[in-house]
Amino acid sequence: MKYCCDCAALLEVRIPEGDERPRHCCDRCGSIHYQNPKNVVGTLPVYGDQILLCKRAISPRSGKWTLPAGFMENGESSLTGAIRETKEEAGAVVIAKKNSLYTLFNLPDINQMYLFFRVELANLKFSPGIESEEVALFSESEIPWEEIAFPVVKTTLKQYFQDIKSNNFPVRMFDVHHDQSRKISTKVISCSDS
Amino acid sequence: MKYCCDCAALLEVRIPEGDERPRHCCDRCGSIHYQNPKNVVGTLPVYGDQILLCKRAISPRSGKWTLPAGFMENGESSLTGAIRETKEEAGAVVIAKKNSLYTLFNLPDINQMYLFFRVELANLKFSPGIESEEVALFSESEIPWEEIAFPVVKTTLKQYFQDIKSNNFPVRMFDVHHDQSRKISTKVISCSDS
Repeated sequence: MKYCCDCAALLEVRIPEGDERPRHCCDRCGSIHYQNPKNVVGTLPVYGDQILLCKRAISPRSGKWTLPAGFMENGESSLTGAIRETKEEAGAVVIAKKNSLYTLFNLPDINQMYLFFRVELANLKFSPGIESEEVALFSESEIPWEEIAFPVVKTTLKQYFQDIKSNNFPVRMFDVHHDQSRKISTKVISCSDS
Repeated sequence: MKYCCDCAALLEVRIPEGDERPRHCCDRCGSIHYQNPKNVVGTLPVYGDQILLCKRAISPRSGKWTLPAGFMENGESSLTGAIRETKEEAGAVVIAKKNSLYTLFNLPDINQMYLFFRVELANLKFSPGIESEEVALFSESEIPWEEIAFPVVKTTLKQYFQDIKSNNFPVRMFDVHHDQSRKISTKVISCSDS
């Protein structure tokens, strides 16, 4: 961000009066351009004892398996966004129950928050969208654990197969940190049953 | 958004190739400027049978009572943002348990998502920050229900006094719609105990 999107003047990064953080400020028109975390919304699509996964056709992690997810758009709710992404990436129609929110991940190092919803596949019709190479159902033992694209996906899957034993799926929140060695640590910081 | 913040060229609103939504596109440098919902994070600070509320000193709803909350910042998690806002607006230090996520509101008509965390006041030290006129503790019967600033706050408070009867606080998700007559309807669409 270099120029003001309202008036095209060069921006200055400074702490505005009454604020505590550096912002992109326009001294010509007075606009302050805030930058905030973005939400990524997705689903854990269940069919019996199987989960629907997508093999990524795009970078990052092309060729790795993931749950359908993408950026939440203006004008939609988190759940409708997650359902939309599932249709776009996996060609699948899903049914969300009232208690569908399942995992929430804070990723402060990359300014994102992930939300996954536990949903059911409406039928066995699914097919790869433009961002997927392949879409397939996996039981727990079939999941390609070493080929999962993102830690948030692996954690959501692991948590699901843990929770299904008790048939109790509280909402769980995690903090994910990317340290300087590019290692990723995931820490549970909240779950609604503890 | 009128000019490209990367190169200052005039932007065009059109659907980029491979996309389905109109975006702000720069034909000079090729940048696409996405706009996404923002998160507002806050707390429900509890002290015994009382809740800490802030009387707003700024618009909108100046003079009305609210829970401490504000925009989630880059580089922070939703919970650390909520705790920060509580310190800033109410001068209060709070303690969050592991199961602190409580209510989540989708507000698709204004491109926001609200998250409230149920926390405990660490002590009785609190004082109004720059955005608050007054900060005070209220028991259920004392809450100024007709003077609550926002529906998301009123719904969180009502839900809390309902849930405290069973001492069970599942995460609850709501969709809030602002219809054309400016009336606001709140619909529960997800809660983790149903």
